[in-house]
Amino acid sequence: MIKIDYTNVMAEVIGERDGILREELLSFRHFVSETHQRIQKEKERKFYFAKLPYQDPTPILETAQHIRENFDYFVLIGIGGSSLGSIMLHEALNGFNYNNKKVPKFYVLDNVDPEKFEAVMENIEIEKTCFNIVTKSGSTVETIANFSIVYDTLKERLGDKYKEHLIFTTDPEKGFLRKLANEEGIKALDIPPLVGGRFSVLTPVGLLPAAVVGINIKDLLEGAKKMDLICSIEEHIEHNPAYLIALTHYIANMRRGKNIAVMMPYAERLSSFVDWYKQLWAESLGKDGLGQTPAKAIGTIDQHSQIQLYREGPRDKIITFIQVNNFKHDFKIPDDIPEDIHYLSGHTLKDILNKELLGTKAALIKSKVPNITITLDEINEYNIGMMIYLYELATGFSGYLYKINPFDQPAVEEGKNFTYALMGRKGYEAKLEEFKELYKEKYKIEIQ
Amino acid sequence: MIKIDYTNVMAEVIGERDGILREELLSFRHFVSETHQRIQKEKERKFYFAKLPYQDPTPILETAQHIRENFDYFVLIGIGGSSLGSIMLHEALNGFNYNNKKVPKFYVLDNVDPEKFEAVMENIEIEKTCFNIVTKSGSTVETIANFSIVYDTLKERLGDKYKEHLIFTTDPEKGFLRKLANEEGIKALDIPPLVGGRFSVLTPVGLLPAAVVGINIKDLLEGAKKMDLICSIEEHIEHNPAYLIALTHYIANMRRGKNIAVMMPYAERLSSFVDWYKQLWAESLGKDGLGQTPAKAIGTIDQHSQIQLYREGPRDKIITFIQVNNFKHDFKIPDDIPEDIHYLSGHTLKDILNKELLGTKAALIKSKVPNITITLDEINEYNIGMMIYLYELATGFSGYLYKINPFDQPAVEEGKNFTYALMGRKGYEAKLEEFKELYKEKYKIEIQ
Repeated sequence: MIKIDYTNVMAEVIGERDGILREELLSFRHFVSETHQRIQKEKERKFYFAKLPYQDPTPILETAQHIRENFDYFVLIGIGGSSLGSIMLHEALNGFNYNNKKVPKFYVLDNVDPEKFEAVMENIEIEKTCFNIVTKSGSTVETIANFSIVYDTLKERLGDKYKEHLIFTTDPEKGFLRKLANEEGIKALDIPPLVGGRFSVLTPVGLLPAAVVGINIKDLLEGAKKMDLICSIEEHIEHNPAYLIALTHYIANMRRGKNIAVMMPYAERLSSFVDWYKQLWAESLGKDGLGQTPAKAIGTIDQHSQIQLYREGPRDKIITFIQVNNFKHDFKIPDDIPEDIHYLSGHTLKDILNKELLGTKAALIKSKVPNITITLDEINEYNIGMMIYLYELATGFSGYLYKINPFDQPAVEEGKNFTYALMGRKGYEAKLEEFKELYKEKYKIEIQ
Repeated sequence: MIKIDYTNVMAEVIGERDGILREELLSFRHFVSETHQRIQKEKERKFYFAKLPYQDPTPILETAQHIRENFDYFVLIGIGGSSLGSIMLHEALNGFNYNNKKVPKFYVLDNVDPEKFEAVMENIEIEKTCFNIVTKSGSTVETIANFSIVYDTLKERLGDKYKEHLIFTTDPEKGFLRKLANEEGIKALDIPPLVGGRFSVLTPVGLLPAAVVGINIKDLLEGAKKMDLICSIEEHIEHNPAYLIALTHYIANMRRGKNIAVMMPYAERLSSFVDWYKQLWAESLGKDGLGQTPAKAIGTIDQHSQIQLYREGPRDKIITFIQVNNFKHDFKIPDDIPEDIHYLSGHTLKDILNKELLGTKAALIKSKVPNITITLDEINEYNIGMMIYLYELATGFSGYLYKINPFDQPAVEEGKNFTYALMGRKGYEAKLEEFKELYKEKYKIEIQ
């Protein structure tokens, strides 16, 4: 079960300066209805992610089973959309201490930080490790850099058997990894060409690692399917959670000056869900001078760090809380504690956590800060599947509101090209000249 | 060594719409000079954190040594300013895999998430564990909730010996923990009353855990001292790094509409440094409708998540990059790799990391996004000490710019009071009525 409570974004609760009038929301009815029809038609094209819940996961499950039976370590090499989804699923659904108790142990190489590389390598035995290299283009610098070291090491240590330790997840036809897979007979899974990185968690990009670490990917797809069904049937703003999230954020941003969208789960296992959301929201909508900056906070920790700013700082935020009703464990505060703290007795940690959330919300209402609460009865595959699809569709729908293409990321190329130039790649000589022209270190302070 | 390069916030590089004119910076000369004098005088009062680098750490080192010799596990129970600094120091200076290799293993209970509590408890043996309870007021709900369970369990399992497993870090005179320490003979360290939570990392709050996990706290204090000396001598904006950081951010915020301050280290060990900074910046300056929202990004990961937004989204950001010149390890891309990726050969992971940073900066300059780069020759105690003091002083100085008190957090109380009311604490009956008046769930969507 998931519940979206948007009472506290409404003007009747927090006033018209910061809140949304019901009439204002409903005035988008016609726009929503038209957009709804467009989205249904686009499901074979730009909104292809909407087809993913209906796939047959059997081939992925078979590959995962093979890995689970043959390896003690599973290392995902990928960055951005190629790893944020897998990290999110693992953290949300396996929780803490997984690597202390289960195999295959799961690690991610999602950066070129050499100390992180060292740390992962130190934790694995390479002859018992399956490496999953994930890049749609087949050429992502960080991923290929990590891969090239692993590839060399595997060949050196295991000779011809190196192939058995590699699985690529990449474009079905294009790119370096696909070519290498074909040439050398390395197993490779397909990323549907119509699905971009940040919408790819329900392709083999996210589903293979998830299945390897024991997540029930059928239930995950079921949850996504349920959300697709609801959102395909309901075109009324007040019944369609994806359109509602998109619209409340859009109005808050463009009409109330809220250029920051905070997501604040009160459950640490959802920490990486926020990272996944941050990519989706920022990279999809940050275009043409528009877009909202997603910000991460964790309850209750950031009550002691960010709430002062949220309450008394600029009126530039809309906040989404995520509440969880049931945890796998809970702990009761004992009765036999000193008098001064006796008001805690009988409560459990979960009670306190969720009462702190309520208390924080009440304080924000007093300060007229718009906030939405999404409640999950528990963190499980089905609910996370719903949440993934909910935010993907809300993002896609927001593209129509902002009148931008939410599925491209044109501004990312420039930095890559300068990096290629700095690395001396052929064909980038002009870019290197441009860099030298642009980049100076003129004003600085140095302290020994 | 640290170097602050602020070339790319200047109008001559990114234009006057987004950049700062040198004259504009220098026009604050008189203000800076006056404020400089005030700060020197306030070092015995509000700016008391400035005295901390000069303390004698011997008592802390002795306590830490006792813990290192007698315990296999060290659990810090604290939240916000009572844990962010310790987590930051541990992560920055011990790096990855510490708990796999060293004792005492280090865990933090900084939330009332019951699954996190379970996860920490599962990893320790309580009879070999020292618990450090850190709360200045002695009554922080989350901390006391976790403590009360631990206290009960220790008494039950170890009888009278429970005391030896507890160390409190709290106010020298006031509050529940101090009272309990006095009554039951539990060891307690003092937090100087003039130092608030988010400025307390160089008190026993941060220094005891740091010393327990093997961090050289003398070098840490030396770094902070060096920064204090530089900043006490240099009142010229262009030579005082703290005033420079404060002023560039202030002008960017108040005169160029940059209400978001991104910090983006290209070194994963500095991830928690950003969390520490986020509390400092947000809670200190988020007042009177003013303040800047700190946002976290990690290079290169977030190039694949946030850079699209930073380049082509709203012109609402100033970015601080942190570069590290030397890592403990590095890895060379092999020569014998396929032709398609041969441009990588000969480079190391560190080279690629820092060239990606340069490439990203060049792309941001083209988009006229103001950015500062702080370079550390390496991540060590001395440099982190400098960084801590640099940001504490920049924050304190910013209080004068914004004309707010950077050392209080009045807006945090309200949520706490509602939480007490919801927990049925005596004396909060009126607050409970107020809650019922404020809080409704009227508009919602539920999906099974």
